[in-house]
Amino acid sequence: MEEFIFHNPTKIIFGRGKIGELGKEIRPVGKRVLFVYGQGSIRKYGVYDQIVRSLEDGGIERVELPGVRPNPVLSLVYRGIERAREAGVDAVVAAGGGSSMDTAKAIAAGVAADHDVWEFFQFRKTIKKALPVFAVPTVAASASEMNGAAVITREEGARKFSARSPHLNPRTSILDPSVLFSLSPTYSAYSAVDAITHALEGYFNNTAGESALQERLIEALIRTIMESTEIILRDPRNYDARASMMWSAVLAFNGLTTAGLGRATLPVHMMEHSLSALYDIPHGAGLSILLPAWMAFRAAGDPGKFARFGRAIFGIEDWDDLSAALRGARFLRAWFGGIGAPVTLQEGGIPEGDVEAIAEHALALAGVWQLPEYTKDVMIEVLRRCTIPFPG
Amino acid sequence: MEEFIFHNPTKIIFGRGKIGELGKEIRPVGKRVLFVYGQGSIRKYGVYDQIVRSLEDGGIERVELPGVRPNPVLSLVYRGIERAREAGVDAVVAAGGGSSMDTAKAIAAGVAADHDVWEFFQFRKTIKKALPVFAVPTVAASASEMNGAAVITREEGARKFSARSPHLNPRTSILDPSVLFSLSPTYSAYSAVDAITHALEGYFNNTAGESALQERLIEALIRTIMESTEIILRDPRNYDARASMMWSAVLAFNGLTTAGLGRATLPVHMMEHSLSALYDIPHGAGLSILLPAWMAFRAAGDPGKFARFGRAIFGIEDWDDLSAALRGARFLRAWFGGIGAPVTLQEGGIPEGDVEAIAEHALALAGVWQLPEYTKDVMIEVLRRCTIPFPG
Repeated sequence: MEEFIFHNPTKIIFGRGKIGELGKEIRPVGKRVLFVYGQGSIRKYGVYDQIVRSLEDGGIERVELPGVRPNPVLSLVYRGIERAREAGVDAVVAAGGGSSMDTAKAIAAGVAADHDVWEFFQFRKTIKKALPVFAVPTVAASASEMNGAAVITREEGARKFSARSPHLNPRTSILDPSVLFSLSPTYSAYSAVDAITHALEGYFNNTAGESALQERLIEALIRTIMESTEIILRDPRNYDARASMMWSAVLAFNGLTTAGLGRATLPVHMMEHSLSALYDIPHGAGLSILLPAWMAFRAAGDPGKFARFGRAIFGIEDWDDLSAALRGARFLRAWFGGIGAPVTLQEGGIPEGDVEAIAEHALALAGVWQLPEYTKDVMIEVLRRCTIPFPG
Repeated sequence: MEEFIFHNPTKIIFGRGKIGELGKEIRPVGKRVLFVYGQGSIRKYGVYDQIVRSLEDGGIERVELPGVRPNPVLSLVYRGIERAREAGVDAVVAAGGGSSMDTAKAIAAGVAADHDVWEFFQFRKTIKKALPVFAVPTVAASASEMNGAAVITREEGARKFSARSPHLNPRTSILDPSVLFSLSPTYSAYSAVDAITHALEGYFNNTAGESALQERLIEALIRTIMESTEIILRDPRNYDARASMMWSAVLAFNGLTTAGLGRATLPVHMMEHSLSALYDIPHGAGLSILLPAWMAFRAAGDPGKFARFGRAIFGIEDWDDLSAALRGARFLRAWFGGIGAPVTLQEGGIPEGDVEAIAEHALALAGVWQLPEYTKDVMIEVLRRCTIPFPG
């Protein structure tokens, strides 16, 4: 096990009907907030009303910033920073999915900085402070509600970058699994793909070697995410399944699974950022296309961990390592396809002929993400596997 | 899954040679500390020197309170409070096992209170503040380094009680697995028993019903604790095994495994507190005697979860629930015996004839722990199973 720092001070309030506690949580830090949310779905399903009522009950004024879209953009972050400064807010509240939370975090860091917030995303500046962030997630996928990461796309050049700091950890996040009842089957499936990919990137991509504890924790999460998702797709209002999924998705990317793994890298996420920046497809859809193909590509060279995955999750027995590894990648692709997520570029509406252009775009990210082994040729190889029926 | 609040702000710094960071961690909260430790083993193995050097490098003065013993006592807490007040310390540093950390926490709460600290342990007062606590554990068992619990024995009447508050969570804990190299085989075994019991009490004793995620996480921890302990007993200086054990023991009792389980009770711990209060045996030894016997007792009435445990941990197949459950309890007892922990009262040096007197003593705790189903007769039944070769 490698050395690590684990520090996750976010307070999680979990349970049905808990959104009403938001105002009380915010009160100790101030009386005015910027309230960031998406495109109105939180109005439709009562979350907006619950938040507004709780803020009002707590005597907390709000300035609103609606309109966050999937793959959230820098221009909205700038607008939010401006609005937050004008109103002199004490905190930022986010409601919605990862996009709303990431936008809120970027605004929280930007308000407290005396330079362009984009510098943080270019790793040219370190986040040293931020306004406190409070989150009410309505999607269970990103774990942004319990980590310090934010991913923002700069429209110019379609660049999707991330920033990370303990200062971006939400102060309090309120997780009510019943708000997920209305999440569509498609987005429920994308959520599962996203959470599984979060868990698996650490599992496959780390410098620690064998890590029995972390591997077991990750396998426990993946089993639960798969099982819950299968129940959710049959029975969207199943509270226990939504709750298991909601908490598993958090644990899959809140630092728990990677503590001790050394340098845990995210090459699948990196390549996906090119897909969603270029084609504006949902993050979960991009990951569903890329992950099994990437697994098959990597397994061919070093099947050990991929074989373990195939055996632990899909019960693949009586096969040598390479076969177990490749079968694991295929079974995972079949499972993704079965829950309704796209598993080839074509299914994602991405022209097969764009493989080279996508690799070219991702190459710029490989530098920033410090993944020099992801050359253009390597990425072309992975992307080609995203165009064929069998990833490997 | 039941509603929960998860809030664990302790910062964990994990890795070889990290004790030197202690001074830097303390500096933001003050310049003078009370340094609480045990009976000198930290001097023998270099931990004392590392801590003192780090405090001196950070310009932090110290007042010392050595002499903490297993089953730490209230009189030493009173002495520590007095010493801390006289010296006007800003924080409390603990080095050692659960006893040192629990003593430090009780002192931290007591210094900040205007009444007898024992009121907190009687649940007559709620802890509203405490001095910041910093911990350097040299035993991997209690998880006190990442939770808000403290267990203290009042010598008068041999009463062992606990207090719990987020204010008692250490600010920072530094975990260096290499300090465990010199931990004796006996205490390495007791540590495993303690950590396994922490994990299993939530697994068996909760109000949430089926909880696939938590059960899987707990099974992952138990497998890792067992595997690591077996390696440690063969090879005490195996860094990876010590590291896996050290982090697993923390995760087994830092709130992770019980989040969502509703009311998770600790009847085995409760009964053990009577054993160690009356006979001053190590906590892990008492748990080793009690846990399998208690499992067999409970499994007889409702084998479901106990059968799951037997199947998941010991691979028991082809047996009905009751048989799988009882075999699980027997296998666990055999495993405890195999690592050198006592598994009957007699092996623990406790007279078989004291069963009634122990039950009488534990009855007083059952009220405080709000476990009214633990009548004297029930506890006699469990304790009788602690005197026979087969627990059930």
